[in-house]
Amino acid sequence: MINYNEDVLIVLSLSKNQMVLNITVVKTGFLAVTTLIEALLDERASRKDISIRSVSSGAKMNKVDIDAVEQLAKSIDTDLFIVVSPNASLDGPKNLALNLGKLKPTILISDNPATKIIEELKGKIGYIIIQADPLIGIRKEFLDPIEMSNFNSDVLKVLSITGAFRALVHEIDLVVSAINNSQPIVLPRIIVDKHKALSHSGLSNPYAKSKALASYEMAKLVGRLSAEGGYKEKDRQKYLLVVSASHELIRQAAILADEAREIEKTHDNVFRQIHDSEGNYATKNKLLDSF
Amino acid sequence: MINYNEDVLIVLSLSKNQMVLNITVVKTGFLAVTTLIEALLDERASRKDISIRSVSSGAKMNKVDIDAVEQLAKSIDTDLFIVVSPNASLDGPKNLALNLGKLKPTILISDNPATKIIEELKGKIGYIIIQADPLIGIRKEFLDPIEMSNFNSDVLKVLSITGAFRALVHEIDLVVSAINNSQPIVLPRIIVDKHKALSHSGLSNPYAKSKALASYEMAKLVGRLSAEGGYKEKDRQKYLLVVSASHELIRQAAILADEAREIEKTHDNVFRQIHDSEGNYATKNKLLDSF
Amino acid sequence: MINYNEDVLIVLSLSKNQMVLNITVVKTGFLAVTTLIEALLDERASRKDISIRSVSSGAKMNKVDIDAVEQLAKSIDTDLFIVVSPNASLDGPKNLALNLGKLKPTILISDNPATKIIEELKGKIGYIIIQADPLIGIRKEFLDPIEMSNFNSDVLKVLSITGAFRALVHEIDLVVSAINNSQPIVLPRIIVDKHKALSHSGLSNPYAKSKALASYEMAKLVGRLSAEGGYKEKDRQKYLLVVSASHELIRQAAILADEAREIEKTHDNVFRQIHDSEGNYATKNKLLDSF
Amino acid sequence: MINYNEDVLIVLSLSKNQMVLNITVVKTGFLAVTTLIEALLDERASRKDISIRSVSSGAKMNKVDIDAVEQLAKSIDTDLFIVVSPNASLDGPKNLALNLGKLKPTILISDNPATKIIEELKGKIGYIIIQADPLIGIRKEFLDPIEMSNFNSDVLKVLSITGAFRALVHEIDLVVSAINNSQPIVLPRIIVDKHKALSHSGLSNPYAKSKALASYEMAKLVGRLSAEGGYKEKDRQKYLLVVSASHELIRQAAILADEAREIEKTHDNVFRQIHDSEGNYATKNKLLDSF
Amino acid sequence: MINYNEDVLIVLSLSKNQMVLNITVVKTGFLAVTTLIEALLDERASRKDISIRSVSSGAKMNKVDIDAVEQLAKSIDTDLFIVVSPNASLDGPKNLALNLGKLKPTILISDNPATKIIEELKGKIGYIIIQADPLIGIRKEFLDPIEMSNFNSDVLKVLSITGAFRALVHEIDLVVSAINNSQPIVLPRIIVDKHKALSHSGLSNPYAKSKALASYEMAKLVGRLSAEGGYKEKDRQKYLLVVSASHELIRQAAILADEAREIEKTHDNVFRQIHDSEGNYATKNKLLDSF
Amino acid sequence: MINYNEDVLIVLSLSKNQMVLNITVVKTGFLAVTTLIEALLDERASRKDISIRSVSSGAKMNKVDIDAVEQLAKSIDTDLFIVVSPNASLDGPKNLALNLGKLKPTILISDNPATKIIEELKGKIGYIIIQADPLIGIRKEFLDPIEMSNFNSDVLKVLSITGAFRALVHEIDLVVSAINNSQPIVLPRIIVDKHKALSHSGLSNPYAKSKALASYEMAKLVGRLSAEGGYKEKDRQKYLLVVSASHELIRQAAILADEAREIEKTHDNVFRQIHDSEGNYATKNKLLDSF
Repeated sequence: MINYNEDVLIVLSLSKNQMVLNITVVKTGFLAVTTLIEALLDERASRKDISIRSVSSGAKMNKVDIDAVEQLAKSIDTDLFIVVSPNASLDGPKNLALNLGKLKPTILISDNPATKIIEELKGKIGYIIIQADPLIGIRKEFLDPIEMSNFNSDVLKVLSITGAFRALVHEIDLVVSAINNSQPIVLPRIIVDKHKALSHSGLSNPYAKSKALASYEMAKLVGRLSAEGGYKEKDRQKYLLVVSASHELIRQAAILADEAREIEKTHDNVFRQIHDSEGNYATKNKLLDSF
Repeated sequence: MINYNEDVLIVLSLSKNQMVLNITVVKTGFLAVTTLIEALLDERASRKDISIRSVSSGAKMNKVDIDAVEQLAKSIDTDLFIVVSPNASLDGPKNLALNLGKLKPTILISDNPATKIIEELKGKIGYIIIQADPLIGIRKEFLDPIEMSNFNSDVLKVLSITGAFRALVHEIDLVVSAINNSQPIVLPRIIVDKHKALSHSGLSNPYAKSKALASYEMAKLVGRLSAEGGYKEKDRQKYLLVVSASHELIRQAAILADEAREIEKTHDNVFRQIHDSEGNYATKNKLLDSF
Repeated sequence: MINYNEDVLIVLSLSKNQMVLNITVVKTGFLAVTTLIEALLDERASRKDISIRSVSSGAKMNKVDIDAVEQLAKSIDTDLFIVVSPNASLDGPKNLALNLGKLKPTILISDNPATKIIEELKGKIGYIIIQADPLIGIRKEFLDPIEMSNFNSDVLKVLSITGAFRALVHEIDLVVSAINNSQPIVLPRIIVDKHKALSHSGLSNPYAKSKALASYEMAKLVGRLSAEGGYKEKDRQKYLLVVSASHELIRQAAILADEAREIEKTHDNVFRQIHDSEGNYATKNKLLDSF
Repeated sequence: MINYNEDVLIVLSLSKNQMVLNITVVKTGFLAVTTLIEALLDERASRKDISIRSVSSGAKMNKVDIDAVEQLAKSIDTDLFIVVSPNASLDGPKNLALNLGKLKPTILISDNPATKIIEELKGKIGYIIIQADPLIGIRKEFLDPIEMSNFNSDVLKVLSITGAFRALVHEIDLVVSAINNSQPIVLPRIIVDKHKALSHSGLSNPYAKSKALASYEMAKLVGRLSAEGGYKEKDRQKYLLVVSASHELIRQAAILADEAREIEKTHDNVFRQIHDSEGNYATKNKLLDSF
Repeated sequence: MINYNEDVLIVLSLSKNQMVLNITVVKTGFLAVTTLIEALLDERASRKDISIRSVSSGAKMNKVDIDAVEQLAKSIDTDLFIVVSPNASLDGPKNLALNLGKLKPTILISDNPATKIIEELKGKIGYIIIQADPLIGIRKEFLDPIEMSNFNSDVLKVLSITGAFRALVHEIDLVVSAINNSQPIVLPRIIVDKHKALSHSGLSNPYAKSKALASYEMAKLVGRLSAEGGYKEKDRQKYLLVVSASHELIRQAAILADEAREIEKTHDNVFRQIHDSEGNYATKNKLLDSF
Repeated sequence: MINYNEDVLIVLSLSKNQMVLNITVVKTGFLAVTTLIEALLDERASRKDISIRSVSSGAKMNKVDIDAVEQLAKSIDTDLFIVVSPNASLDGPKNLALNLGKLKPTILISDNPATKIIEELKGKIGYIIIQADPLIGIRKEFLDPIEMSNFNSDVLKVLSITGAFRALVHEIDLVVSAINNSQPIVLPRIIVDKHKALSHSGLSNPYAKSKALASYEMAKLVGRLSAEGGYKEKDRQKYLLVVSASHELIRQAAILADEAREIEKTHDNVFRQIHDSEGNYATKNKLLDSF
């Protein structure tokens, strides 16, 4: 049983002998962050401080799907749940996260629409909302598997370079470290906006930062256009152009993010921050430098 | 109990009343195809003929990890297993797939090194080997989470546009359709090489095809360079440049694949092939056309 | 003296013998549309149906400046006033336009913030609000003359290609034509949003349209970021990055608009619509075609 | 009444109590510099040492148009006239400038063809000839309003980045400063060629300079091609390709100028030179630096 | 012994039994056309109607070098001499060509400066002057072997795509064909200007043509800048920037030529004109078409 | 008569009074290196220590052609033969080089397939094998003169920037220097692979190096694809796409090499190494530096 303090979410970690933290990632539906979250936490499969299992209901987010993954998740020996879902303001993913949060420390990762429910989450579970992980342009005449995967390719580039992914990893690593070091657990309550992302980007050139910031805002705009084109606009010609425009926009956001990284390369100044086998960070900037 | 014919792998489907095929995706380690396979099969979460569950051991592929996902997988009510793993010639993923294959029809998805074991798989499980889903540049001084996710972004673009993903989806859909229509199941035995990929790309302009073909071969070369830089080369300066070159190469392969798709856009000739709710294909080329 | 109908703004044109309509453009402050409006109306200086004079207060929009141009404007023999100003919700430009509107048919051209006052304008003057003619990143440490002119270069490209300028020209030409043909004058009440712009773009390829639509939305976003960086954000490091990001964004919007036009070139399908000497339109698409 | 010295054009400034210099910009026809000259002089509308009024005859340059703006200009209280016109070797703009020059210090700004008349101007008015502000491709089948505005977008980028605009501003500021400080006025007699422009560009990287220099020469070549295609070539197929080539060339010149600026961004070394409220320059190079 | 008619240069071909025309290419110094002329004439080494030998003095063009290649050339059994040299207005290459022209039909290929001597050549030898094969930026501090070869790479792209090389091949093939078919030989007297080149480019899209035409003019401008920077300008800082600008310009010209070819690819409309084994042309446009 | 030591190829130079080394380049068929080798050795035609003559059989490599150039070569007073040929494992070029090697020190320059015969060459002649000078896509329906020259343009860019050409020049200069200084001649036995090339590239930024390395490997892959498409693949549709893909690949390799050089430009760090008139190297990095 976990006690929550209302204002500062502190979970007293149970003293453990085990060195390895068991993380269970529970996924329903797809965001870009859904695709690589385990690898972001253990990029070279070399961390000895964590063990990850994931379960997913695939693209579907119906009650039956979510119930199934909840049961699967509960069957796994877990120290920390990470729930990843688009639009966590829907009952399905919200309750999934809250239910798991009753058992173990739980972090919900979602996109912009989840902002609506953060008050409901406080004191119960942590959350990380990534503003620039946008809704896809979900129209039947438009969104085939290739349009979908190509879109995700572009979003991954934006989230990688603008700092959003590193912000996410940082927050989770803080929790992992706290648990493994028997310190109080402060679950994250974070909205990754443009400045938050940028502060983790490791970018140093101010124009690289400006490009990354613009790329991040473009990705947010993608979400608004996808919502307009996918749900609100009723004129068929218009909604097809709007969802297609949203995908042109994410392609351009990815190109701009890439420009930012290329600038850092010209200075041999790409910030790299790996997890060593104990889960600690080692950082460097020059490609041929040692840690 | 499943009967296998040695030469042509035919699985007699058990007659079922249920309309929904339960697919369980079992993942260990990461390829690019790992990230989106469920979404590729059900891109708009609207298929009524399949239900997907996934379990994963994250980036790690140790025996303990693989055993755990095997147990998890076996706990799920499954009609078709899809095992996704890099380098399935390793005992871990190979045995995982073969073990599950004893229970239910199983398809192993892996990358180039798996070619070595295809004789071992025949008559037991199906396989789809994607030549252009390359090894990442796995050096500690180089591969941080962002380098990793950025790399995957580029690979996803190559696999999306060159036809590899659609080839994969096509093969799995054939099995799904066979099972759901109570026809004999022929599990795929496919190596997705450049011509196989291209034949599923939907590209029509011959220069778009040429660019896609070149992009595909570049991605294969990435795998060779990553292996050289990641394992064979011992000189530190050289191996760092070689892994970095392999990532420059995949970036360029993604740019070239993008060029191919842009050519098709100039003709309003982007092939789109969606799954309708019954899992059948509907196709179109002009953006504003109806199905 | 002009009579206005409340709901539909109809100005009864006084019968005239003169063939040439005297247009006076009254400018205060700078939008991108400010720079070329006369040339947009008479691109080859060959129209015999209109004569244009302009007066401007330059970049300044103080009361003394606006009063001065109002007096200058009133000294010119005018049939139609066109007032161009950023943020026409300010008293200065708003009253300038309303004052001139008491004398002659008047059209106010402004940007997004002017949307707030359109109720005040109805029945008095016409208006054309161009959503994608964005505020510049107005911070002293950032905005030197070159940053300013470079920004305007990018905005001009967006407004040219996405259809905004042609929408503007179309609306003014309707009024010119009505007056010169002694028909009732319906002054425009137009907000040029993305669909309005696109409908005048002459783009035919749907991906060119999608890129143009995305470019238009990016330019709108520039305005939001410039406002945030220029006025709301107080942290110096942040506001400098935000205004710089807004200019990176408009650069990228211009690049995307250019992509749209290049697509039309690949098909020899660039829509051209000139004014002949009588002010009528002649149109063509193929470069080597005759009218 | 103004006295001119033949060799060195010195205008003795009349002693004034007023701190604000009244500049009247008189425009006939369109160059790229026509569009933004007021904003180049007062980029943030914050200078207290100058007040600007402009009058224009729009695109037309007939005698009636030029006479009208001359009368308008004379009706304004002016300390310094700036006349901006394409091809000031034509009688219309030349006499306009010379007539105004009899009243007040006057600077004529024009393009390459004006070089022919500089002997006629000496001792009477100042001049600034911008070699890279080229003639547009003026063929009826080609030059619609959008082709025109898009062309100007490209020219603005070239003139902004290569230093031409800053050269222009510098020369005018020298005169403003002289008048406001009651010093002898030396009106400019400047042809802005590639080296003159570059010396004001603020570019520091020698390859950025080389690209800017090449861009400047390309813009000059645009003028030659536009003249050939617009006037000399009589074969319709050829002249249409030549004017179209001249616009392709300016597009490429803009791209090359942009490359130059992007190089400076990679070093956080973009030279910025603002006017403070007294009209003095403040300069910086690093984006986040203070003045 | 050959008879020349003054006005129309007709060489009566001696009747021959041999089917193979012996061409001797005599080179002194380097133009871009120097590098590939033999391969342009026999691109797949499959022509049975010609046999080619070449001799060259390398980069040097001193009298001793030119005399040596003249002697070498005379030692070869030759039916047609092709002399390739930069600046054939110099005595060395001019006399080389004229001397060989006394023995056999001779075609001189050179660049712009050779235009000065075409009157001297008439009635003696043929000539093909390629305006866009420009002088290199020949300053010691700048032109190392890599700058040189990189420059030639760019020039080759311009000459390939804009039609210059095909114009050259066409003219020589006419002579070859005439000799081999015992028809009167009309030696070429051709200046390959932009329209001449374009007429052989095989480009069909008018914007591709416009880009090619612009690229061709850029390459001509390169020659002017190289001459200015290499010989005329004495200020060291300026001449280094000017030669560097000339190389930036040719790089951009190559990029623009490449754009032109890419446009034709988007339509699967790349004109291909091969030599079959008899030296006749076979042409096609669609990549997968047969002849 | 020359004595060879088996293991270390040392040629005792005969004492000479002459200061100028006579190099005869003997060419049969075409590689990219064929086109510019003389200019690479004497880029500004200013070396007094060498004199170059070349003879070539053009594109053809039949016995009659090769015999002819061998006889021509033998007629020239030569101190050092350089034989340049594609696929020197063929009898024709191999014997040409070996025959000349019996007379004078001889260096064979060839591409990858020549690797097969290096054992045959040891102790007889030197060799330089450039792995990234790839076979062209030699199909009749594809390879017209323009496709050929455009391909060579791209290869030249790759070989220029990645260091291959400078490696080649370096090896030959060592021999020249040894002979001219009466030192023992060690003929080169060099395979220019990616690391060898890179070590001569003069690139300093590690990402520029990574891009160059990737570009070099792409060019090698071009050779493999050209061989597959040109000889092995029998399906017409496939082989046309494969040769076309090989040319798309070299285009992309050239673009990537160009990116590498542009990075060095952003730092004003382009390594330049000229031959002075004595054939010694002078080097610099900053454009405006003196030697």
